[in-house]
Amino acid sequence: MEGVDHLAHERSKAQFDVDQMKVVWVGSRHALQVSDRIARLVASDPVLRKDNRTMMTRKELFKNTLRKAAHGWKRINELRLSEEEASWFRHYVDQPAYTDLHWGMFVPFIKGSGTEEQQKKWLPLAYKMQIIGCYAQTELGHGSNVQGLETTATFDPKTDEFVLNSPTLTSSKWWPGGLGKAATHAVAFARLITDGKDHGVNGFIVQLRSLDDHLPLPGITVGDIGMKFGNGAYNSMDNGVLRFDNVRIPRDQMLMRVAQVTREGKYVQSNVPRQLLYGTMVFVRQTIVADASTALSRAVCIATRYSAVRRQFGSENGGVETQVIDYKTQQSRLFPLLASAYAFRFVGEWLKWLYTDVTQKLQANDFSTLPEVHACTAGLKSVTTSATADAIEECRKLCGGHGYLSNSGLPELFAVYVPACTYEGDNVVLLLQVARFLMKTVSQLPSGKKPVGTTSYMGRAEHLIQCRCNVQKVEDWLKPSVILEAFEARAIRMSIACAQDLSKFSNQEGGFAELSSNLAEAAVAHCQLIVVSKFIEKLQQDIPGKGVKEQLQNLCNIYALYIIHKHLGDFLSTGSITAKQGSLANDQLRSLYSKLRPNAIALVDAFNYTDHYLGSVLGRYDGNVYPNLYAEAWKDPLNESVVPDGYQEYIQPLLKNQLRNARL
Amino acid sequence: MEGVDHLAHERSKAQFDVDQMKVVWVGSRHALQVSDRIARLVASDPVLRKDNRTMMTRKELFKNTLRKAAHGWKRINELRLSEEEASWFRHYVDQPAYTDLHWGMFVPFIKGSGTEEQQKKWLPLAYKMQIIGCYAQTELGHGSNVQGLETTATFDPKTDEFVLNSPTLTSSKWWPGGLGKAATHAVAFARLITDGKDHGVNGFIVQLRSLDDHLPLPGITVGDIGMKFGNGAYNSMDNGVLRFDNVRIPRDQMLMRVAQVTREGKYVQSNVPRQLLYGTMVFVRQTIVADASTALSRAVCIATRYSAVRRQFGSENGGVETQVIDYKTQQSRLFPLLASAYAFRFVGEWLKWLYTDVTQKLQANDFSTLPEVHACTAGLKSVTTSATADAIEECRKLCGGHGYLSNSGLPELFAVYVPACTYEGDNVVLLLQVARFLMKTVSQLPSGKKPVGTTSYMGRAEHLIQCRCNVQKVEDWLKPSVILEAFEARAIRMSIACAQDLSKFSNQEGGFAELSSNLAEAAVAHCQLIVVSKFIEKLQQDIPGKGVKEQLQNLCNIYALYIIHKHLGDFLSTGSITAKQGSLANDQLRSLYSKLRPNAIALVDAFNYTDHYLGSVLGRYDGNVYPNLYAEAWKDPLNESVVPDGYQEYIQPLLKNQLRNARL
Repeated sequence: MEGVDHLAHERSKAQFDVDQMKVVWVGSRHALQVSDRIARLVASDPVLRKDNRTMMTRKELFKNTLRKAAHGWKRINELRLSEEEASWFRHYVDQPAYTDLHWGMFVPFIKGSGTEEQQKKWLPLAYKMQIIGCYAQTELGHGSNVQGLETTATFDPKTDEFVLNSPTLTSSKWWPGGLGKAATHAVAFARLITDGKDHGVNGFIVQLRSLDDHLPLPGITVGDIGMKFGNGAYNSMDNGVLRFDNVRIPRDQMLMRVAQVTREGKYVQSNVPRQLLYGTMVFVRQTIVADASTALSRAVCIATRYSAVRRQFGSENGGVETQVIDYKTQQSRLFPLLASAYAFRFVGEWLKWLYTDVTQKLQANDFSTLPEVHACTAGLKSVTTSATADAIEECRKLCGGHGYLSNSGLPELFAVYVPACTYEGDNVVLLLQVARFLMKTVSQLPSGKKPVGTTSYMGRAEHLIQCRCNVQKVEDWLKPSVILEAFEARAIRMSIACAQDLSKFSNQEGGFAELSSNLAEAAVAHCQLIVVSKFIEKLQQDIPGKGVKEQLQNLCNIYALYIIHKHLGDFLSTGSITAKQGSLANDQLRSLYSKLRPNAIALVDAFNYTDHYLGSVLGRYDGNVYPNLYAEAWKDPLNESVVPDGYQEYIQPLLKNQLRNARL
Repeated sequence: MEGVDHLAHERSKAQFDVDQMKVVWVGSRHALQVSDRIARLVASDPVLRKDNRTMMTRKELFKNTLRKAAHGWKRINELRLSEEEASWFRHYVDQPAYTDLHWGMFVPFIKGSGTEEQQKKWLPLAYKMQIIGCYAQTELGHGSNVQGLETTATFDPKTDEFVLNSPTLTSSKWWPGGLGKAATHAVAFARLITDGKDHGVNGFIVQLRSLDDHLPLPGITVGDIGMKFGNGAYNSMDNGVLRFDNVRIPRDQMLMRVAQVTREGKYVQSNVPRQLLYGTMVFVRQTIVADASTALSRAVCIATRYSAVRRQFGSENGGVETQVIDYKTQQSRLFPLLASAYAFRFVGEWLKWLYTDVTQKLQANDFSTLPEVHACTAGLKSVTTSATADAIEECRKLCGGHGYLSNSGLPELFAVYVPACTYEGDNVVLLLQVARFLMKTVSQLPSGKKPVGTTSYMGRAEHLIQCRCNVQKVEDWLKPSVILEAFEARAIRMSIACAQDLSKFSNQEGGFAELSSNLAEAAVAHCQLIVVSKFIEKLQQDIPGKGVKEQLQNLCNIYALYIIHKHLGDFLSTGSITAKQGSLANDQLRSLYSKLRPNAIALVDAFNYTDHYLGSVLGRYDGNVYPNLYAEAWKDPLNESVVPDGYQEYIQPLLKNQLRNARL
């Protein structure tokens, strides 16, 4: 059966141009060509295989990661890959490595926070990988609260140096990827102290290891923090611990773009506005949203294909059983996640545009949109990563028992993905930041100040507070304007309810703390509105390709109505829709599932993932699952011998009732 | 700081008798004494340490499991432990092993399905572990649908034997624990065929491996199916694959309690009613509900203690930061899970009683309550395991970044727990069984047939359809009768709405399939009502101990109001409560959290878990987290050398720009 496409019949049902959908998914024809070529390059490279990853010990896995990183760098140079191609290459290698932090945090941070001089000195070294950098911010006792960091960098005017120190156990740097074993340098964050005065947290470039023999430099204690969630997954990364014992660095290794320490030890702000630093944060969070749609689409691709392969029940007389994907319970759990993958894709695309837009504005000293941009990237990071983490596990459950096998790919995908809910801002902390911004916006409404960007709907508060949803039959729920208004009404009414509750407290901060759960829910409502509205905006663009737009419309409606069903309590308690309308939305949802059904396999094919990248026996493109599951089983180390190691000592004496005198 | 109790201050705040709560949690003073003694015995045994588990390779882990099983059996015999004590012993060893299936499935199944003669032959061998048994039911292509199994057992009248065969690839037995490497025998399920006629699925005792050298017997192909989710976790278990190639067994190895094959090959039902077999299913599911409360309480214990240790934000001037447990967002996520642990405990306790009750009835040939008992155990298995799986991951997130470390104990707890959502009945499939029963019950209401047991509220349908919740102020939500009626109204209204929607379909089965999502939601509502009502019933018992009852009342209210908030859409759309009342419930919830706060640590102490059993640096009893996290890090294999293995080949040439000619 090798070579036979077991899903061919499914593929023949598709009612749209799959190749055109691939272009829509990845963003452009050019991006599709590049990503497709690089994906195949990676998939065909024997050094980059990953099907054996979950059987490796930690040490083997880490060595394998070093090998892949070196091999990747070699190939990137040999093939003279462009920056774009190199980035796709690292993406498809699909194994967390120190290089992620080097390219994703160390380099961008020096670009964003270093002076021109500093950039000129450090960036070429980093670009050629003559140094390996990491980003050492969080500490054992300090995560989200950056201002609470304890590491100190004390200026010594006698030697024109900073002295870095870890004054307490909890001040040990803890978690930075690449720090544990690989990095030669770090951007390390520490409280700047000059002349006994604490100037708050600043970044410093610190060499950690000798470039000759990789041994830690004097005063530096560094190592790996140990095993993490899952098998394979993030255990390929050397998240590290770092302690400074009076480590001296030259003054010019403080990153001085926005603030400087002079030769005399004076702390001075530069004329570069601090707000510029927010650009990096928006950039990083924007990539996290893009990654969410990628991780989600992988899980959905596996679950959708296997749901078409797998059959259970439904045969009365020994005939063929029903494909699991034909059950409404399966559809009602799976299809909203497929729709979410597309929804997150498009909101991520829009965030990418927003980043360029805000960068231009910042460079023109226009900081007016910054709070709104900050709130919306923080909020979208939170809702997309939370939803994706849950969805991966739901996809695993949707694969039944076999989803629990490592070779389904889903356990590792979950384990490697979940930290996204915590890093770069804990998701709940971020929602509260959004809520704070929403409360401010609401409070300014009476003054006539026009809310901008994603909050502009709040300018229509008067209408949205009293409008009534006029859905009367199921088809009414297909109108974008109806959907949008329901989401806007829900969001603004929740925000205003919070503001009113807050106003009853004499102490504003106390009230905010007390009502924080409600505030976080209001923030979620606001962010889900953004996702829906960006999907609807996408549909207003010109989208070529037979049937492509129809499919996207269907997905958009599924996403929106699924959210209405899931958060029905919000919509009903704010009176944004009635119970009857909620029930009609649910009815409409069911018929949308039927419309999606024949296109399901083609819609996940449009992600254009290779079997190598997917890394799942259940999600194989050809659907030839069972012979491969069977073949994979025999590769487990436990099957190296028929009688297991330990039989002589622990099974035989037990069966023979000879344990009494055994030394176990 | 060793020996100092960092949580002593928290413990001093408790407003109730913790020792008495321990008795309530475990069920009786006797059970507390036994479990406490055995827990300490296990914790102090160096062979049974598990802190190094996640660093082992699959082979090391499996050998370690064999060792623990043998050592445990030896200790159980040396100390002459009673059956109850032995069961606690295996529980606290806390490492999935072939013995779980031997004692938990093989033995009970022979007891339930074997004739007296068969029991007399096989049980003594199993009790002395002279054979090791497993339970081989599911196949590569067949999980939930037992009637779809493909393995055949064909009677050969010439030799008076059954011939077992695996006719297809998908008929390979797949998943049975203990099968892969350890078991000598199996209860295997196969379609019984006599004289060309298929009599459906029956159980057979089959020897798999030689008792002399453990080699598979002729015609038997057997092995392990490979790595599963996570590190450690279920990888200690040898879930197996098994194929039969015309394996012959004597006729008397078919389990013949309810049906027999005669010497002539005639298939005859015995006079033992088939329904008796349901007793085993109720028993197994009842233990799963008990296990849910245990797994959930472990996760909650870790997250609660670490939330009291961990501090973030809230200090304006460099003072001590706020304990994370004092944040309302943390409380609103954590405390409902703490309440759920207690709620599941009590509903599990009640199910245990129900099992004894139904067993007595079955033995008296009274099958009247069986459908109701079956529906309620199936439903409770589904809702408690789904909620627990989600809750463990939520507890992990509540620990921030450090929850992602293996030594937090939470990743392994999650990975080892989640299969409970799939095994012994997929949770969605089970909900649909409950829904089917509910629809039948509703359809019989007009006939005047009195619904029994957990459905007796449906006898008050007329009242519940039109009653109005009369909550007017927050305190009203503390009345058990008010809570109960709201849950009853929601449940019955959802069931009746489903029944009405179903009646519009000409094809009942088609309608059931189309509306299956709504039906599953109605089933959840019914099951949550059971959980709440059993908690309320528990509170009507005499509960001694200062303040104990008050704490339980608080937990019960938190659980109920949390469910109302979480499923607000249900309660509002059925008109069971109003939006205003929903908001009051939420307000009440917040003040209940404040009441719980000072008792939080004591409430998780009441689970009486040793540090060995918890297996979490974050959840340590003494709260001395950070020095221990730091010390644990250095034990990782990656830290065995300062410069990592692979530096020479993969880092140095990269830094020196000498990759070009390297062979990687």
